[in-house]
Amino acid sequence: MSYDTNNIFAKILRGEIPSFKIYEDDYTLAFMDIMPQAEGHALVIPKFEATTLLDIPADQLTHTMTTVQKVIAAQKSELGAEGVVLMQLNGEGAGQTVPHLHFHLIPAHLSQLKRHGAEQGDMKKIEAIAEKIRAAL
Amino acid sequence: MSYDTNNIFAKILRGEIPSFKIYEDDYTLAFMDIMPQAEGHALVIPKFEATTLLDIPADQLTHTMTTVQKVIAAQKSELGAEGVVLMQLNGEGAGQTVPHLHFHLIPAHLSQLKRHGAEQGDMKKIEAIAEKIRAAL
Repeated sequence: MSYDTNNIFAKILRGEIPSFKIYEDDYTLAFMDIMPQAEGHALVIPKFEATTLLDIPADQLTHTMTTVQKVIAAQKSELGAEGVVLMQLNGEGAGQTVPHLHFHLIPAHLSQLKRHGAEQGDMKKIEAIAEKIRAAL
Repeated sequence: MSYDTNNIFAKILRGEIPSFKIYEDDYTLAFMDIMPQAEGHALVIPKFEATTLLDIPADQLTHTMTTVQKVIAAQKSELGAEGVVLMQLNGEGAGQTVPHLHFHLIPAHLSQLKRHGAEQGDMKKIEAIAEKIRAAL
């Protein structure tokens, strides 16, 4: 599948729409999921134009996973998360809704997750959590 | 948490207990989950002794993610998977049951997954699927 430059994460990367950013470097961006499956649900994306995990070269993926590790560490230290679920959906057939590669990092037990992409969270609360995590990154 | 050398995946890596292997190289092993959440559910693990994603250095993680990409590609080509869910649980608090870092690769829609680690699958069927995937790797 060719990359769709108009997907919502591409727009966030271009700064065309706002997000609760928690970390950014030359290769990656981390921000809060506004449809959280649990409190503190964050997303990590590469700046590289990849639709799924099959579309990203190893060096770019390494940068992405390093940011994933940083965010998980911050969720543990700042939110007191006892566990973090990493989820990454490849293709609409898996339930992927935004066609830009993204890693869900959800500080909760798998059995307690809300449904994926189902309901917008409390934006004030999400912003407050973003500030906590951002401070550690 | 210090690494528990007696966990079941460590035993699989040492060849002390059997598994349906689909791929192996110097750094990683891929094999079938015998409690599949959907048909074709595979696991990728590093040979490096890491309990969670926070315990593995970047170079080892890069090898692991390269194997993850290979297995997803094979699930798509050999099983006709329209989507693949990647799931990776960090800590008992997230639902992690085996304390060796592992990536679940489940060729199904997120909404159709069976419960994690709940029920053993049909071993003959799992073996047949393993052979299909292995042939492509």
